[in-house]
Amino acid sequence: MEEFKAYIDENAERFVAELQRLCQQPSIAAQKVGIEETAEMVLSMLQRIGARARLIPVAEGSPVVYGTIGEGPRTLIFYNHYDVQPPEPLEEWKSDPFAAEIRQGVLYARGAADNKGDLVARLMAVEAYQKTRGELPLKLKFVFEGEEEIGSIHLGQFVEENRGLLEADGCIWEGGSKDLSGRPVIYLGLKGILYVELRAKGAKRDLHSSWATLVPNPAWRLVWALASLKDENDRLTVDGLMNHVEEPPPEETDLLRQIPFEEKKIKADFGIPHFLGGVKGVEALKRHLYGPTCTICGFRSGYIGEGSKTVLPSEAMVKLDFRLVPDLEPRLVLDLLRKHLDRRGFKDIEIVEMTGEQFAKSPPDAPIVQAALEAARTIYGQEPVVYPNLAGSGPMYHFSKALGIPVASGMGVSHAQSRIHAPNENIKIADYIQGIKYIGELIVRFAEKG
Amino acid sequence: MEEFKAYIDENAERFVAELQRLCQQPSIAAQKVGIEETAEMVLSMLQRIGARARLIPVAEGSPVVYGTIGEGPRTLIFYNHYDVQPPEPLEEWKSDPFAAEIRQGVLYARGAADNKGDLVARLMAVEAYQKTRGELPLKLKFVFEGEEEIGSIHLGQFVEENRGLLEADGCIWEGGSKDLSGRPVIYLGLKGILYVELRAKGAKRDLHSSWATLVPNPAWRLVWALASLKDENDRLTVDGLMNHVEEPPPEETDLLRQIPFEEKKIKADFGIPHFLGGVKGVEALKRHLYGPTCTICGFRSGYIGEGSKTVLPSEAMVKLDFRLVPDLEPRLVLDLLRKHLDRRGFKDIEIVEMTGEQFAKSPPDAPIVQAALEAARTIYGQEPVVYPNLAGSGPMYHFSKALGIPVASGMGVSHAQSRIHAPNENIKIADYIQGIKYIGELIVRFAEKG
Repeated sequence: MEEFKAYIDENAERFVAELQRLCQQPSIAAQKVGIEETAEMVLSMLQRIGARARLIPVAEGSPVVYGTIGEGPRTLIFYNHYDVQPPEPLEEWKSDPFAAEIRQGVLYARGAADNKGDLVARLMAVEAYQKTRGELPLKLKFVFEGEEEIGSIHLGQFVEENRGLLEADGCIWEGGSKDLSGRPVIYLGLKGILYVELRAKGAKRDLHSSWATLVPNPAWRLVWALASLKDENDRLTVDGLMNHVEEPPPEETDLLRQIPFEEKKIKADFGIPHFLGGVKGVEALKRHLYGPTCTICGFRSGYIGEGSKTVLPSEAMVKLDFRLVPDLEPRLVLDLLRKHLDRRGFKDIEIVEMTGEQFAKSPPDAPIVQAALEAARTIYGQEPVVYPNLAGSGPMYHFSKALGIPVASGMGVSHAQSRIHAPNENIKIADYIQGIKYIGELIVRFAEKG
Repeated sequence: MEEFKAYIDENAERFVAELQRLCQQPSIAAQKVGIEETAEMVLSMLQRIGARARLIPVAEGSPVVYGTIGEGPRTLIFYNHYDVQPPEPLEEWKSDPFAAEIRQGVLYARGAADNKGDLVARLMAVEAYQKTRGELPLKLKFVFEGEEEIGSIHLGQFVEENRGLLEADGCIWEGGSKDLSGRPVIYLGLKGILYVELRAKGAKRDLHSSWATLVPNPAWRLVWALASLKDENDRLTVDGLMNHVEEPPPEETDLLRQIPFEEKKIKADFGIPHFLGGVKGVEALKRHLYGPTCTICGFRSGYIGEGSKTVLPSEAMVKLDFRLVPDLEPRLVLDLLRKHLDRRGFKDIEIVEMTGEQFAKSPPDAPIVQAALEAARTIYGQEPVVYPNLAGSGPMYHFSKALGIPVASGMGVSHAQSRIHAPNENIKIADYIQGIKYIGELIVRFAEKG
């Protein structure tokens, strides 16, 4: 692979320019800005490296840029997204978010880290491979969606409608970053999520609070309902829910011990004296990665301004998210929640479903995971940190669960201060170049497992 | 009293003009608009009817306009306030809130009903009495404060500093209105109130909600703490609180039976199928007037906008009011609340005291109450509706409790649609004239009890 790496170094300036060009094209899904133009630009980039590529329209959604290249016994999917978060607040950017300015070896642009840097690095790696080693040793499929930053709202539908195009032996997820100590990170799954609003109503308008003697208060209704969902020791008490939660398999517990979990730094950063229940070390990490949660993300009722207003509110609303572990499907949790409330006389409380995403996980011994680890050891010269899954959620299950394709995720061109979703999003040019090399190495390693 | 009444009718136009003049002078305590000017204007009105009057400054507050007139074995205080609520929203007024326009026998102005109409009616009644019957048969003391609409924040201090000026045998409160059916209403007390904020903190900034596995959530802390204060049947469960609550005395229960409590109308107006606990009739009224409450007036935590945001909030705040019955002093309730929370491990929850007002009640057989009832029967030709106390709160206890002066309240120049605190506040000219006559009759009746 020396020739391959040398080619990348020789062409580094052009590869950076390709990324700058894509970053200079806004593609803000939430604001419907530049989506079609960006899809076309990515399509032609795919075509320039020799891929058979096209836009696959999604009803009422952004098109998916789909492409294939290479032949071989194995097929690998690269999942990326070409849309970006809104750049606001603009005044906090040191350079225009779509100028893609480079200062002291760092490229600043909305989307540089999330996720255009990884997307372009993969295309450049394919070019470099072909130029230095000829035909690809496997079949690559590119699936670049345009709605990741608005919750991948049509990805499930796209996957269902195009299962035939998505057959593969492994998938590499969008990318990611090194950790705070510069170690490569790989993760194999994500928790599921159910996000709901609970709404209660009382009188038809706000009343003077002296009427609290006789008139129901929707804020109290929600307080009582919530208090029945989780107890003061943070134990979930939704009827039947914990029956679906299992201890992690032993081989994954072993993985946990190898994760450098910097709990002191985390507690200091968050400003908390200890974790919930006083858990520490592997126990804390286990709870973080394998425990379901029920979180009040927002609560609003009545008068919330300065000073006192004696009002009996007519409405109350709480936003709740449940982070879900393997056997907790969003539908199941929604059903358990409704029945739990009904059983306790809270039939008046409306549940509005906002988001549901399923748990996703790939086995640590899947060939794509092993290939990702081997490539990381080779390129980064360090043992990667492997998370069996993260505590967050995402659309990975459309591939790992619905299609049954093992997915490896986490390693990409970002660093721990890439400021994803924030002003001055950036990647280091050196990381980008290294990331291109990583993809080439990964292709070789995965093909070898055929 | 026929000559007295005839004088009022003859001078009605001038008496209305006097009220209009005062209404045209803004006196918005919350906005510090026109307070001094209004105090001076009221002072000179008092002087014009022959009272010895002066402004009594209150440190950092609006001055109290104080005056005395007449001599006799009995002394009566008229409590009123010369400040008004802010007039906003201005666009909803049909005429300027300080134009004091009269349309079809109705005077529209901010403060016409609350409380300038009653204030001027009392002065006009004294003038008419003196012009037609000579010297007053008792000693009158006028106490007109300028901060009622901002919570009478210095009234307690004023009363403490001027106890010598406030000796009296009875007090007539600011005024009030006829009920929906046009019946005169008199009430003898008010509940106390304790208004607090409970505040909880978690991490030092909002976090991604995936951290809910390990990081405390202040919204949950408040939910659990609140759920311990009141149960799902609306029973107050603050440790020891209900030990201080007693059944109303039998003679007051009799009063309740005579109150026309239009529960069907009330439920329809509020849009609720039934009252809490299904109570009805006298039971409902008893709960309304004699039951303590604990009301969530506001609750705020985390993300409360549209859609879903997966955030673990760093702060949560709830506004709570307790309406208090005789033996529940605000200080006592605050102390019970703190101990209750501490005992349950909620030492982290901060209690911020916002307002505390004490319960106030005067005995139904007090001479001033009897005089008020007799005068109402004579002037309005109907049996008055007597409430032993209202479910609301106010600064009456500074007189009835701190000074031990029986207070009668409720009857004044307003009607049930006077739109107090709202745009197009108004009184009927006929009610104003009748109200002047009522005050004269009341003076006579109270003097007779000497």
